[in-house]
Amino acid sequence: MIDSIALRREFHKYPEAGWTEVRTSARILEILESLGVPEILCGREVLDLDLLATGPGIDLSEPARRANMQRAAAEGAGAAYVERTEGYPGVIGIIDTGRPGPTYAFRFDIDCLEFDEYDGAGRSPADEEYYRPSAEGYRSVHAGKAHACGHDGHTAIGLLLASMIMESLSDYKGTIKLIFQPAEENYLGAAGIVAKGHLDDVDQMMIVHLALSAENEPLGSHTLCCGVKDFMACRQLDVTYHGEAAHPCGAAQEGKNALLACCSAALNLHAIAMHEKGLGRVNVGVIRGGTVTNVICPECTICLEYRGQYREISEYLGRRVFDILDGAARQYDMDYTYVDYGEIPAGVCSDELMDRVQEEAAQIPWFEKVYYEGNVGGSDDAAVMINYVQDRGGLGTYIGIGTETTGPVHNPKFDFDEECLPAAAELLARMLRR
Amino acid sequence: MIDSIALRREFHKYPEAGWTEVRTSARILEILESLGVPEILCGREVLDLDLLATGPGIDLSEPARRANMQRAAAEGAGAAYVERTEGYPGVIGIIDTGRPGPTYAFRFDIDCLEFDEYDGAGRSPADEEYYRPSAEGYRSVHAGKAHACGHDGHTAIGLLLASMIMESLSDYKGTIKLIFQPAEENYLGAAGIVAKGHLDDVDQMMIVHLALSAENEPLGSHTLCCGVKDFMACRQLDVTYHGEAAHPCGAAQEGKNALLACCSAALNLHAIAMHEKGLGRVNVGVIRGGTVTNVICPECTICLEYRGQYREISEYLGRRVFDILDGAARQYDMDYTYVDYGEIPAGVCSDELMDRVQEEAAQIPWFEKVYYEGNVGGSDDAAVMINYVQDRGGLGTYIGIGTETTGPVHNPKFDFDEECLPAAAELLARMLRR
Amino acid sequence: MIDSIALRREFHKYPEAGWTEVRTSARILEILESLGVPEILCGREVLDLDLLATGPGIDLSEPARRANMQRAAAEGAGAAYVERTEGYPGVIGIIDTGRPGPTYAFRFDIDCLEFDEYDGAGRSPADEEYYRPSAEGYRSVHAGKAHACGHDGHTAIGLLLASMIMESLSDYKGTIKLIFQPAEENYLGAAGIVAKGHLDDVDQMMIVHLALSAENEPLGSHTLCCGVKDFMACRQLDVTYHGEAAHPCGAAQEGKNALLACCSAALNLHAIAMHEKGLGRVNVGVIRGGTVTNVICPECTICLEYRGQYREISEYLGRRVFDILDGAARQYDMDYTYVDYGEIPAGVCSDELMDRVQEEAAQIPWFEKVYYEGNVGGSDDAAVMINYVQDRGGLGTYIGIGTETTGPVHNPKFDFDEECLPAAAELLARMLRR
Amino acid sequence: MIDSIALRREFHKYPEAGWTEVRTSARILEILESLGVPEILCGREVLDLDLLATGPGIDLSEPARRANMQRAAAEGAGAAYVERTEGYPGVIGIIDTGRPGPTYAFRFDIDCLEFDEYDGAGRSPADEEYYRPSAEGYRSVHAGKAHACGHDGHTAIGLLLASMIMESLSDYKGTIKLIFQPAEENYLGAAGIVAKGHLDDVDQMMIVHLALSAENEPLGSHTLCCGVKDFMACRQLDVTYHGEAAHPCGAAQEGKNALLACCSAALNLHAIAMHEKGLGRVNVGVIRGGTVTNVICPECTICLEYRGQYREISEYLGRRVFDILDGAARQYDMDYTYVDYGEIPAGVCSDELMDRVQEEAAQIPWFEKVYYEGNVGGSDDAAVMINYVQDRGGLGTYIGIGTETTGPVHNPKFDFDEECLPAAAELLARMLRR
Repeated sequence: MIDSIALRREFHKYPEAGWTEVRTSARILEILESLGVPEILCGREVLDLDLLATGPGIDLSEPARRANMQRAAAEGAGAAYVERTEGYPGVIGIIDTGRPGPTYAFRFDIDCLEFDEYDGAGRSPADEEYYRPSAEGYRSVHAGKAHACGHDGHTAIGLLLASMIMESLSDYKGTIKLIFQPAEENYLGAAGIVAKGHLDDVDQMMIVHLALSAENEPLGSHTLCCGVKDFMACRQLDVTYHGEAAHPCGAAQEGKNALLACCSAALNLHAIAMHEKGLGRVNVGVIRGGTVTNVICPECTICLEYRGQYREISEYLGRRVFDILDGAARQYDMDYTYVDYGEIPAGVCSDELMDRVQEEAAQIPWFEKVYYEGNVGGSDDAAVMINYVQDRGGLGTYIGIGTETTGPVHNPKFDFDEECLPAAAELLARMLRR
Repeated sequence: MIDSIALRREFHKYPEAGWTEVRTSARILEILESLGVPEILCGREVLDLDLLATGPGIDLSEPARRANMQRAAAEGAGAAYVERTEGYPGVIGIIDTGRPGPTYAFRFDIDCLEFDEYDGAGRSPADEEYYRPSAEGYRSVHAGKAHACGHDGHTAIGLLLASMIMESLSDYKGTIKLIFQPAEENYLGAAGIVAKGHLDDVDQMMIVHLALSAENEPLGSHTLCCGVKDFMACRQLDVTYHGEAAHPCGAAQEGKNALLACCSAALNLHAIAMHEKGLGRVNVGVIRGGTVTNVICPECTICLEYRGQYREISEYLGRRVFDILDGAARQYDMDYTYVDYGEIPAGVCSDELMDRVQEEAAQIPWFEKVYYEGNVGGSDDAAVMINYVQDRGGLGTYIGIGTETTGPVHNPKFDFDEECLPAAAELLARMLRR
Repeated sequence: MIDSIALRREFHKYPEAGWTEVRTSARILEILESLGVPEILCGREVLDLDLLATGPGIDLSEPARRANMQRAAAEGAGAAYVERTEGYPGVIGIIDTGRPGPTYAFRFDIDCLEFDEYDGAGRSPADEEYYRPSAEGYRSVHAGKAHACGHDGHTAIGLLLASMIMESLSDYKGTIKLIFQPAEENYLGAAGIVAKGHLDDVDQMMIVHLALSAENEPLGSHTLCCGVKDFMACRQLDVTYHGEAAHPCGAAQEGKNALLACCSAALNLHAIAMHEKGLGRVNVGVIRGGTVTNVICPECTICLEYRGQYREISEYLGRRVFDILDGAARQYDMDYTYVDYGEIPAGVCSDELMDRVQEEAAQIPWFEKVYYEGNVGGSDDAAVMINYVQDRGGLGTYIGIGTETTGPVHNPKFDFDEECLPAAAELLARMLRR
Repeated sequence: MIDSIALRREFHKYPEAGWTEVRTSARILEILESLGVPEILCGREVLDLDLLATGPGIDLSEPARRANMQRAAAEGAGAAYVERTEGYPGVIGIIDTGRPGPTYAFRFDIDCLEFDEYDGAGRSPADEEYYRPSAEGYRSVHAGKAHACGHDGHTAIGLLLASMIMESLSDYKGTIKLIFQPAEENYLGAAGIVAKGHLDDVDQMMIVHLALSAENEPLGSHTLCCGVKDFMACRQLDVTYHGEAAHPCGAAQEGKNALLACCSAALNLHAIAMHEKGLGRVNVGVIRGGTVTNVICPECTICLEYRGQYREISEYLGRRVFDILDGAARQYDMDYTYVDYGEIPAGVCSDELMDRVQEEAAQIPWFEKVYYEGNVGGSDDAAVMINYVQDRGGLGTYIGIGTETTGPVHNPKFDFDEECLPAAAELLARMLRR
């Protein structure tokens, strides 16, 4: 049996942002192969590249892939496996048991977030500044990259599940697809796999995520939720205001201040009234503008997202977002342009599959408390996959695996209780053996 | 006689930001030497390096200097001259005529601004998108760098003046210092030269700048102003707000939004009421913050400046600026830190020297209209030098050389009428020959 | 049987703001007496005047009461009844049936909102600008006062219920208290009645409200919800910033701009990030500041409220609200003071009582669709009463009576389907007769 | 000789806002008559009522005039004089000396500002809270009205000048018009007099104002400036945003928040970049919006003004103001309407007349320091009159009379050194006797 904790720490140490997960993919490939998984897809076989070519900000050019491959090899991925990826991220392991049964698919997302991980000076847990990844040597070695959303753990769960299946293959039936998906934090990761047809024959779609919540409390260690019903649709835009530079003393009246337009937009975007029928959120996460201090800022960009639990809410927020964007442009007499990353949909897990998770989880001692329904409180392109399978008559769920953490999700100081990993894999294996 | 227009275009093509002007310095050195200027200071001789070591953002480390030297050589500066700079910017040519007379100093600033130059597609002036630097091949080859403040012209004027003096040296008296100063747009350029003692013996300090204004109109070609009295003090700060990252859906209440704190600060900084006793200005020129769209922005920086014509105004604005900065931090429950670049002083040109400029300009046909007093409408560390010389009993002035331009100063589309260059050098030569 | 629709229209036509409901109270008194209600409390008997004396903005002084009494009499309330109110609002009818049984209490709120009612020009429903209260002559005759929250309907339901009980008194058991409460929209209306001890012996507290929602849709005609569990706590503050007047040209630097401080506060208050654990809201409803256009605004007031579904959320919002208030004051270098109206609590209806409502409603044909749980989506001082009764071992619920409306609640164009009134009274009567 | 200080205090005690100056006018009429001024215009003779009928906010209806007349009589103005005003403000005394000479006109503005005057508790000047108008009994008896701009003094100077002329009429020549003008702080006061033709034959227009500045310092006692050249044009607008009310919890998405639209407008209006060619100012002086705290604000008004020293600046600011107004409306998806009070023009005093003021002031011992040019640092409809006279070949000036003050102009605590009053009248008399 492979060591899921050691693997999780390895992935944690070498985090890779969406569309650059070449080291991670090569390692997954290597491990699946070592476990004897009979069919493994990688490189051009995983993603619909035509679809991705339409996506803003996705650079899968030859030089970009080549650079990621070089880095992957330099960071300890086997050269032959790196070569097989061709620099494309994503791996799918397929196990046809030969026995009749449903087609199961699991999604494990493998990308990281793009900010610096916390670095704690403390050496023992008693130290105030203790941070286990620093103390035990698996903190991110990549500046500006961090696994602060548990995807390192998800990947390790997937590999452990593969090893459990391969070790007693005769206990399993049907066909099992282990999908290691890139770019969950970006856009088109799930869509790229769906568009390639990998889910066309899937009957049950199961996805795990660490550290969700239920009943308004984070899911700590020894807890679990069987599914969620509050996926929010999410649309992201990078909006650039185009003003005019001028000297702020010599010719201020000839300038058009894009920085102030963005500040007016950002403040008013955050002040949009929430829709009373359900969840909605607006966030401006990034702002960048200006050249030097003594020039009126000619161009400024804000990166924003809005999310709604229902279509009515998303549409309302979209209208209000563009009201604000238009109005700020008008205030400062300028135009704006934007890159639209598209919309991840809302979605609802299948009760029938959640019921089964509930039964199986009850059999695993580590899970002391099982919540039927939990909360994702946001968006995940898991919904793309679940919706697709459900639309074709199948079932899907998104299982929250409880785990104590050292910070909220998406915080630079996010580490978790690794004991949850084997428990999660055990649950998934049981779902297959029912 | 050297070709000032060709030289100006060469400097225009290879703009260098403050503290990196190694190619420019090596070329100045080479030209001054070729003209036979008897004493030339460069490298460590020009600037007080101890003072600069205290300056924020000034990187004169061995690797930084080495990189600039390599670039300078690759861009056509003579290797031997590059080597003599040791990677430090700035050159001073000294001509002791051997005849009794005052010590004169001229300041020519050599640095560029840090943004992209406009790139016009038009090939003939009749085209709407015509931009001469593009059409005639001297547009900046450095991304993010542009001579949009005329310093390329100032440098060319200085070299032309040197060639005029050396060609008929016997017409001149006293000692003449031609100071090619780095980093006028940053801080400590002038101060670094003053601190090294180069102005201790100076009786007359003369500085030219293209494209000022007078009587509320830009100084066009064939005009001139003899001095200015409205230098504003200017202080620049880079202010960073330190918030807390969190997922904007899962845990928004645990975040502290540094982006919104900066937006609140920026808008309110620009809304500071102006002081009625004279000129004052506040500008937030740059904003940068956030990691990715779906994380609450944990850290955001604004780069700002404030300027006042009198001490009372600068102090008032400084108080108001920190009120706003403090208040925005309080609104978003966070701290901020800042880098203080210090304050360039206000200053007033010497009437006695302005009178002399007026007399000499009247003798030069190119100057059809001579304004006694013009407006800088902002700040220039020229004031550091003028104040220093005046405080020791000398005279100083800041002469505005009129020239038609294709955009306001500090605009990406700033080119000018190069006919002004020989006229300016002729004026300075006449000031020496009086 | 009394005509609840005619009565509702009468109350609609003479709306009275919280603490001034003298005409309404006198009319209630008159009607209850005409129905033979055996015990009727009014005037000083209803409210704890000592408590009210502590409340900001409550003027129950002799001259204020006298003025309201004069107006009430002039507007058709019987002089003797007006006199008996002594100018204090609120009436309680008590019916001791003489038969053993629980003590039941009902709350009917009687106050209006303080803005102008819509005035539609249309005369027939087909006209675009048709508005029934205008067309049929019961639009508010009081400028700045409108029944846009259904309290006119609640009052009519209470009186109809009284007439139903008195008509067949022998069908009822226990003791029945019909509480006509003032000042639901203000503060201390419910608290003033509780403090007087009127709920000390109550076993079942029932409160109706028109036009709530359920399952994210407004409750239209022929629907009902049996209770709610989402009362939000609500705290209201009137915050005044104290700046300094000055001439905006002659002496701007001596001013301190309270208007801008309030604008900065209001925008940032609305931008407070919502807490992920439940509902929360912040609203700045009113702003008032300045003297004349050509004076820097010396004093400005904002009236705000914040609401949270749980204590943790209310505390979070309260902290953030004061962060913003403090920060805006700091930005503009001034102090602020505030009037604190106190906090209405959150609350949850009793399942046991909701079950009974569900059973009874199913017996009434008008209610075609019965939702078990609905949403108030806000606050109501009904929670003060329900909590009080529950804390002493009793039960309470807040029943949403569906009705089509012509505008959302608190909109100037709010009218409703009056058919709901007898259905609501019938439901309450059945709850008593069980 | 009349007592100018006693009169100034009387006017101070009964301040009247623009278009309501009936008590003041009746008193002026009475005093001029008592002095024997041969021709006195009042009532309908002073102002062009057709022009005023076009002015927003000017209520000269019969009931309004009647009410002001009643008040004026109640406050001690002689009934017969009140009657002669017919409730219209403004008085013109005309003295034709019978000797040949120019036609001179003087403007004395008589209206007050609309805010509460400071009320100091101190009884002796040593007390910290001493305020002479309170201590000596001439503080404003009108709530919300205060003479904080010196017009009480101007009026007293005009009456003292009249008494000086009448006492030795044979020393004077030509025709002298003493114009007591209403509504300087509002709009159309000066224009209403000009339109009536009173300045058609005027050769010299002289206007005094207390407490201007010169060389960046307030003009204190014993100083004077002979004229100003910095009148700014000023346009005032009352802008109302029309949103939509809704309950901030139950239906926030149906609201349109006019309060936030105004806050966004106000902040960004104050952040408009100043034009570098001269003075400009923007002020939002008043904001008013909202109904009650728990309703989204449906309508909000801001009262703003912008001023520019030159046409180019005024036009630039006007464009920017409407950019901001439009943009804020767009941000909050609503319309706005506005009342436009029109524009007071810029203007420049006549050097020839300023020279004469300089000569005469030098003869008056009280004026120890005479500045040639001072600063109004704002706007005054005096410019309407000066421009009109200049345009017809005459001369005009606006003389600043220095005086120590207890607060800046337009501050609630503005009192001044009354010694300046006879000195000012003496100067004007000398200007006539030249």
